[in-house]
Amino acid sequence: MFHHVKELQFNARVSKPDPRFATLLLEQFGGENGELAAAMQYFTQAFAAKQPYPDKYDMLMDIATEEFSHLEIVGATIQMLLKGVNGELKDAADQSEIMEVLNGKAAKENVIHQALVNPQFGVLSAGGPRLTNSQGIPWCSSYTHSNGDLTVDLRSNIASESRAKLVYEYLMQFTDDPYVKETLSFLMTREIAHYEMFEAALESIKPNYPPGVLQADPRFTNQYFNLSQGESFRGPWNEGDMPVTGKSWDYIEDPITHVKNTEGLQDQEKGIEKELKATEKLNKELSKAKSAEVTGAQPKGVAQWSDYNGKGKK
Amino acid sequence: MFHHVKELQFNARVSKPDPRFATLLLEQFGGENGELAAAMQYFTQAFAAKQPYPDKYDMLMDIATEEFSHLEIVGATIQMLLKGVNGELKDAADQSEIMEVLNGKAAKENVIHQALVNPQFGVLSAGGPRLTNSQGIPWCSSYTHSNGDLTVDLRSNIASESRAKLVYEYLMQFTDDPYVKETLSFLMTREIAHYEMFEAALESIKPNYPPGVLQADPRFTNQYFNLSQGESFRGPWNEGDMPVTGKSWDYIEDPITHVKNTEGLQDQEKGIEKELKATEKLNKELSKAKSAEVTGAQPKGVAQWSDYNGKGKK
Amino acid sequence: MFHHVKELQFNARVSKPDPRFATLLLEQFGGENGELAAAMQYFTQAFAAKQPYPDKYDMLMDIATEEFSHLEIVGATIQMLLKGVNGELKDAADQSEIMEVLNGKAAKENVIHQALVNPQFGVLSAGGPRLTNSQGIPWCSSYTHSNGDLTVDLRSNIASESRAKLVYEYLMQFTDDPYVKETLSFLMTREIAHYEMFEAALESIKPNYPPGVLQADPRFTNQYFNLSQGESFRGPWNEGDMPVTGKSWDYIEDPITHVKNTEGLQDQEKGIEKELKATEKLNKELSKAKSAEVTGAQPKGVAQWSDYNGKGKK
Amino acid sequence: MFHHVKELQFNARVSKPDPRFATLLLEQFGGENGELAAAMQYFTQAFAAKQPYPDKYDMLMDIATEEFSHLEIVGATIQMLLKGVNGELKDAADQSEIMEVLNGKAAKENVIHQALVNPQFGVLSAGGPRLTNSQGIPWCSSYTHSNGDLTVDLRSNIASESRAKLVYEYLMQFTDDPYVKETLSFLMTREIAHYEMFEAALESIKPNYPPGVLQADPRFTNQYFNLSQGESFRGPWNEGDMPVTGKSWDYIEDPITHVKNTEGLQDQEKGIEKELKATEKLNKELSKAKSAEVTGAQPKGVAQWSDYNGKGKK
Amino acid sequence: MFHHVKELQFNARVSKPDPRFATLLLEQFGGENGELAAAMQYFTQAFAAKQPYPDKYDMLMDIATEEFSHLEIVGATIQMLLKGVNGELKDAADQSEIMEVLNGKAAKENVIHQALVNPQFGVLSAGGPRLTNSQGIPWCSSYTHSNGDLTVDLRSNIASESRAKLVYEYLMQFTDDPYVKETLSFLMTREIAHYEMFEAALESIKPNYPPGVLQADPRFTNQYFNLSQGESFRGPWNEGDMPVTGKSWDYIEDPITHVKNTEGLQDQEKGIEKELKATEKLNKELSKAKSAEVTGAQPKGVAQWSDYNGKGKK
Amino acid sequence: MFHHVKELQFNARVSKPDPRFATLLLEQFGGENGELAAAMQYFTQAFAAKQPYPDKYDMLMDIATEEFSHLEIVGATIQMLLKGVNGELKDAADQSEIMEVLNGKAAKENVIHQALVNPQFGVLSAGGPRLTNSQGIPWCSSYTHSNGDLTVDLRSNIASESRAKLVYEYLMQFTDDPYVKETLSFLMTREIAHYEMFEAALESIKPNYPPGVLQADPRFTNQYFNLSQGESFRGPWNEGDMPVTGKSWDYIEDPITHVKNTEGLQDQEKGIEKELKATEKLNKELSKAKSAEVTGAQPKGVAQWSDYNGKGKK
Repeated sequence: MFHHVKELQFNARVSKPDPRFATLLLEQFGGENGELAAAMQYFTQAFAAKQPYPDKYDMLMDIATEEFSHLEIVGATIQMLLKGVNGELKDAADQSEIMEVLNGKAAKENVIHQALVNPQFGVLSAGGPRLTNSQGIPWCSSYTHSNGDLTVDLRSNIASESRAKLVYEYLMQFTDDPYVKETLSFLMTREIAHYEMFEAALESIKPNYPPGVLQADPRFTNQYFNLSQGESFRGPWNEGDMPVTGKSWDYIEDPITHVKNTEGLQDQEKGIEKELKATEKLNKELSKAKSAEVTGAQPKGVAQWSDYNGKGKK
Repeated sequence: MFHHVKELQFNARVSKPDPRFATLLLEQFGGENGELAAAMQYFTQAFAAKQPYPDKYDMLMDIATEEFSHLEIVGATIQMLLKGVNGELKDAADQSEIMEVLNGKAAKENVIHQALVNPQFGVLSAGGPRLTNSQGIPWCSSYTHSNGDLTVDLRSNIASESRAKLVYEYLMQFTDDPYVKETLSFLMTREIAHYEMFEAALESIKPNYPPGVLQADPRFTNQYFNLSQGESFRGPWNEGDMPVTGKSWDYIEDPITHVKNTEGLQDQEKGIEKELKATEKLNKELSKAKSAEVTGAQPKGVAQWSDYNGKGKK
Repeated sequence: MFHHVKELQFNARVSKPDPRFATLLLEQFGGENGELAAAMQYFTQAFAAKQPYPDKYDMLMDIATEEFSHLEIVGATIQMLLKGVNGELKDAADQSEIMEVLNGKAAKENVIHQALVNPQFGVLSAGGPRLTNSQGIPWCSSYTHSNGDLTVDLRSNIASESRAKLVYEYLMQFTDDPYVKETLSFLMTREIAHYEMFEAALESIKPNYPPGVLQADPRFTNQYFNLSQGESFRGPWNEGDMPVTGKSWDYIEDPITHVKNTEGLQDQEKGIEKELKATEKLNKELSKAKSAEVTGAQPKGVAQWSDYNGKGKK
Repeated sequence: MFHHVKELQFNARVSKPDPRFATLLLEQFGGENGELAAAMQYFTQAFAAKQPYPDKYDMLMDIATEEFSHLEIVGATIQMLLKGVNGELKDAADQSEIMEVLNGKAAKENVIHQALVNPQFGVLSAGGPRLTNSQGIPWCSSYTHSNGDLTVDLRSNIASESRAKLVYEYLMQFTDDPYVKETLSFLMTREIAHYEMFEAALESIKPNYPPGVLQADPRFTNQYFNLSQGESFRGPWNEGDMPVTGKSWDYIEDPITHVKNTEGLQDQEKGIEKELKATEKLNKELSKAKSAEVTGAQPKGVAQWSDYNGKGKK
Repeated sequence: MFHHVKELQFNARVSKPDPRFATLLLEQFGGENGELAAAMQYFTQAFAAKQPYPDKYDMLMDIATEEFSHLEIVGATIQMLLKGVNGELKDAADQSEIMEVLNGKAAKENVIHQALVNPQFGVLSAGGPRLTNSQGIPWCSSYTHSNGDLTVDLRSNIASESRAKLVYEYLMQFTDDPYVKETLSFLMTREIAHYEMFEAALESIKPNYPPGVLQADPRFTNQYFNLSQGESFRGPWNEGDMPVTGKSWDYIEDPITHVKNTEGLQDQEKGIEKELKATEKLNKELSKAKSAEVTGAQPKGVAQWSDYNGKGKK
Repeated sequence: MFHHVKELQFNARVSKPDPRFATLLLEQFGGENGELAAAMQYFTQAFAAKQPYPDKYDMLMDIATEEFSHLEIVGATIQMLLKGVNGELKDAADQSEIMEVLNGKAAKENVIHQALVNPQFGVLSAGGPRLTNSQGIPWCSSYTHSNGDLTVDLRSNIASESRAKLVYEYLMQFTDDPYVKETLSFLMTREIAHYEMFEAALESIKPNYPPGVLQADPRFTNQYFNLSQGESFRGPWNEGDMPVTGKSWDYIEDPITHVKNTEGLQDQEKGIEKELKATEKLNKELSKAKSAEVTGAQPKGVAQWSDYNGKGKK
């Protein structure tokens, strides 16, 4: 179960209202790389991880809970940046008021313009955060990835943290408020910290490559198809050795001819029968092992999620 | 900030795996009336409520946190209902296994059919919950309502709780598992409890009708337009007195003729000048009062969200 | 069947073009609380209501049809606010023209800016309304609620009308045009009128609480979980009597300890066996009664929706 | 304004309940080519068409209103196909009942399966139509096209009617119920009738090609780029004369070489300076004419949408 | 398989950066009528067309590939219009820089405003194109139509090309850059060229009317329902002969009375039994013929998509 | 520009029709981890990468083009799995036919059931692929990530390839067709190959950690907040050294107390002034360097994307 503590994890402050930056900051409240996306991704992954990885479950729940706490920090900051908006909108019978409030001395023209630039604060939420990105797109769970395999999920998380970090970096350029910058810097840094947690967790699972269970088919593993005609570049991604498996890249200079000559890559398997067999064997072994690991961790009989006071477990 | 306690709020248990009911139950995990929708709606509303209603803020955060805790219960139940799926999918090299697992003795035919009926457990999440409804539609923040006015937000919440309660009621008919039914009954009942909390909170704000600040225009308040030709029914919604304001309903039997005769409802204001003036005056007074209430609650200078150890305030 | 009368229900007028307010007004054309959302919600609910509530069906269809008529008023107003845009965009070979039109004397700079602020009028609809909200989000039927139970649907409608009313209130602050304000005031007032119609209809169904059929589980009905640590507030939502059922609130000061001590709320049922039995009995009676009500209203044999000239019915 | 007549335009009947076909039929209720999509497309287009094409406005409103009436027919048919579902779901306390109802003698297994196949009738709408397609995707206004130019909009409509006709044709194969087939046949035929109405309306506007105002650039009008290597086919779309303009197709056998040789199609304009000038002149003339047509039709001063009893117009 | 050539099909150039027009131009990158929508529509249709229409498959793939090439042109143009943005955002530690770059001499105020007007370039993509429309709505495959019947698909394509052409026409008014205008003119013209290709292809299939296979029901084909009361217009769409079938329009002046008198259009079939029979016969013949055409083109046994070097086929 | 070669990159074959597996396979056609998502992600990233990383641009375009080619393979396979469906649906006048076709001897019951399980093949596409996932959700560009920074984009790509690989692994368990398995194995393996290409490319950029430009704030980098109360686990993600930066993890056992004691993490900076300064300095240097790198690569004057025959470049 969750519990809420009224104090924010970080002492978020705001020097003065700034509805425009509030709009941009929505990107981290309800945007695709924002705090809700992170929180829900780790929270959702945690369920499948609990068996047989209770330690990873613990980590995912710790970080998910921290991301919820960050969502709260972002929401609180947006709310403070919008100071004045709600009060003025409540003065619904007097139009002259709203003009003077949003940014002090502005003429009505400006006020209406502000409303146009981000209509939701003016006509929908009346000066509170909403779960949309900076352009008003509603948050959507398609932003999250949860695929039931930790060697994949943790890689998704490393990428998610990278993007979240970058968006905070971009955002920091659009505000001068030292308090807001301080908060953004804290939040940005935590994404880096989480990055390393996920990296460490991934390294603690062995084997973790390739992600999932099945091995690569040796016939197609190391080919690089030069499908973009014109000035072609060579680099460690298509010459020399592959970075993880260490095989040599096979650069297909003219893929169209190659495909035609091999009848759609059919005639390539000469001489690798042995390697194919080894792969198949490895696939079977790993499948059994991974399957046993998961299945073995699931107790028989009535399933119970929690162990209250140690009574639940035998 | 949020905090997580590993024990579930309710001791959710499951007698035996049932991937099909797991699919239906997704409706309350990532569906439009589900636990995430409730949690995020109250959580988002809470920011704007904090000033000048710290007591309502407290209530919204309490209930939002409980809904997060219910989301966890639903997720845990789905996970337990899916026992076996993940382990079998890990046995990726052996197709014969998956057939026997999902529902025991089923032939491959059945297994594939199961996968078709809810592909996401088979080909996306590998046996864990995902934030979609029972048909795979991703959860979307459009499901939540947060409009910066408590007399409106609380009404939205009463409706949300009503729908959530009903969906649990429907779901209970599709499972026989006594443990699952017990959990559903708990969750359903809590929606009713929240319903009353919101009702009580709404009644504690005065005036709360009409929702928002502005009064109804007396010219158009009590008209009922009989726009649906055929057998017409009369009832308390179009005859006698209005339930809240107590005015008498004005039943427009033939709206088309009425609209034409009044030049688009323009010639109706005779004899109500006094009432119009009174409305205008009330609008101004309420606007000022409500605006002052909100604005007065917002401190000057640097804004700070939390008060740590009482040092932050004063 | 539907029928269209060319005259608008209300004589909508516009003093002069104002593309910017047209953008904001889209919120009530294709937005989540707009007229299409209302029309489609009541229209969709009406089908399931027809049996056994032909009177509520009549009311839902009357109001749905009025909301369609309001959608037309909003669309017509947007169209009039956009006067000039379409004509200028037709002058596709002469760029110099468009600059002078949108708001009279504006320089090209301004014109392009307008287009940026709301691209859809400039590059998609050429000066006509589109079914999006004020930020361009397409209208989506997720905005509507229809759950096959009138005690729930009517509560959804009361909430919907509250939100729609509020959005009109907000919008009124962003225009000075007296004609437009007059139209908005009419539309806002009608939401209040509909609110009372739904309230009256709900009161005419008994019992209507809890929404749906099943009663609350007495073990979990009156608990308030204080899940938000810090300054805690007490109010009618967590102390004294519950507003609808009149039971006393049970305030759980420390939910974490309580949950652990009760093994996940399991050990709470002492002394309420009688109440549990009574609930179960009530559930069965109400289920039978409600089910019979619906089923009894459905005629046997070939189903026919309409009764033409009284010949269809016996 | 709209008006509703309780009788359906077509006497829709249903022999016996069939929840499965109800699911498929949702495609025409809330699907991308369904009746709501058609109704909203023509309704939305009508606003911009009113000036200077009041006759096309009349036609668009006539057809939009008929499509609303068809939406009602589809909804009524779905409701009749679902007979029994709602009544049984109301019997929430007795699970044994629901099993026997959905398709008569079916075992519980079947009932649950039905629910899985289309969860929304079971757990969301309780046996009423919802505005989704047959797979539960919510209806979205992105399905509609309205671009402020009748020569384009009418072409969009011809395509929409073609698709709607086809979907009815597909649907007819999935039901045996003669009453339902009769209704589908009626609805399918009306799409054909509308097709011809739009065709006729398009032909009555001259010039209507190319759609919009600007002419094609003569340098790029008649080129066919053979970009798909392999067995290439020639037909009236790349050899002989173009069907509308009558120019000769210019088949570019080897587009890559051609692009390189012409520096990105830059060196192609030799000898067509005259044609380019003529195009430019035509563009200017048509722009002026079309712009004048629209602008001229918009009255000065306060805009008023409707003319009540002839008093509104001078 | 696809192949990429680094040179653009058209030599796209840009005089100077213009982030605002870049925003508008997104409409053709990730918008509903943009190049991706066209490319994916034809690409998807091509699969079902391959049998029995390999010539239409060839055409669809040629045009789809050209649209991909246009998508690249639009993306490249946006990227060039955004010159400077990415570089400045990289200077993340120095806020003063970003102000001077986006439009030269602008103050910080302007920079922030730009970011607000289109947040995605500032806080998400850092100055690159994203697959959204000009308002940030993500591209969605609902924009494409593919219905497995060429007489329908080609009509969808004609409409799609019409809309795409029009949007380019609108866009051309919002830029002064002669290079950009030249590119837009090229792209606009190609939509016209494709229009004629699809028109020619449609004409080469016989019969192609009505779209699909089934004929219209003669009882409902030629009726025009005058459902929009008020000033009614007559034109070739409701008087005289139908444009395609040549039947005479039957104008139903008062549809409500007509529907009631005919018991929901039931009593209309007198005297057309012969026509009904003929329709039924034609339906059967065409069904058989069309079905045989498709089925006959599908080879027996193992299916293979490609024929490599002529070896794959017989 | 793009070019299409009619031969598939891989010789995709299918033993016999299997509409059910076709449904599942849609996951890789129009699903969130499918081939279109991959193709569009790399294609979109390529634009911003071109300057100053033409070698990475080349790689991104090569892989994007290969993913388009895989999209074609998946589409072709789905089409072959659906053999028969389109032909039968064309036989629209004879219902008895469709029953026998979809899976040979099946009764009508089965046919309708098939249609229900995946309605789109039956009532929308008539047996062709559509750009949706296996549950009918339309493909959406929110699935793609493109953030204008290669050190982030490449990490996104590594995660994307991991997920795509896993989904192929899952899918392989739901078909017995050896030809289909062979194709899936090829496609799965290519995801692994791309994984290594992106890994190698990332390693060739230095520095690449943290992703983006700004360094972590040393005050918050190494803290692990134990926010999930209950059995807590220690591992390399919260004890010992951090995997990338090598600092020591700082495990905050009781975060609530810690936050309160530090006034929201404010009082933690003692003794790290030097480190803070160093970070600031590094931020400035890296910002300048990265900014110069991008800006320096952008030529002055008119921008031109392509260099035709070497004439474009000086």
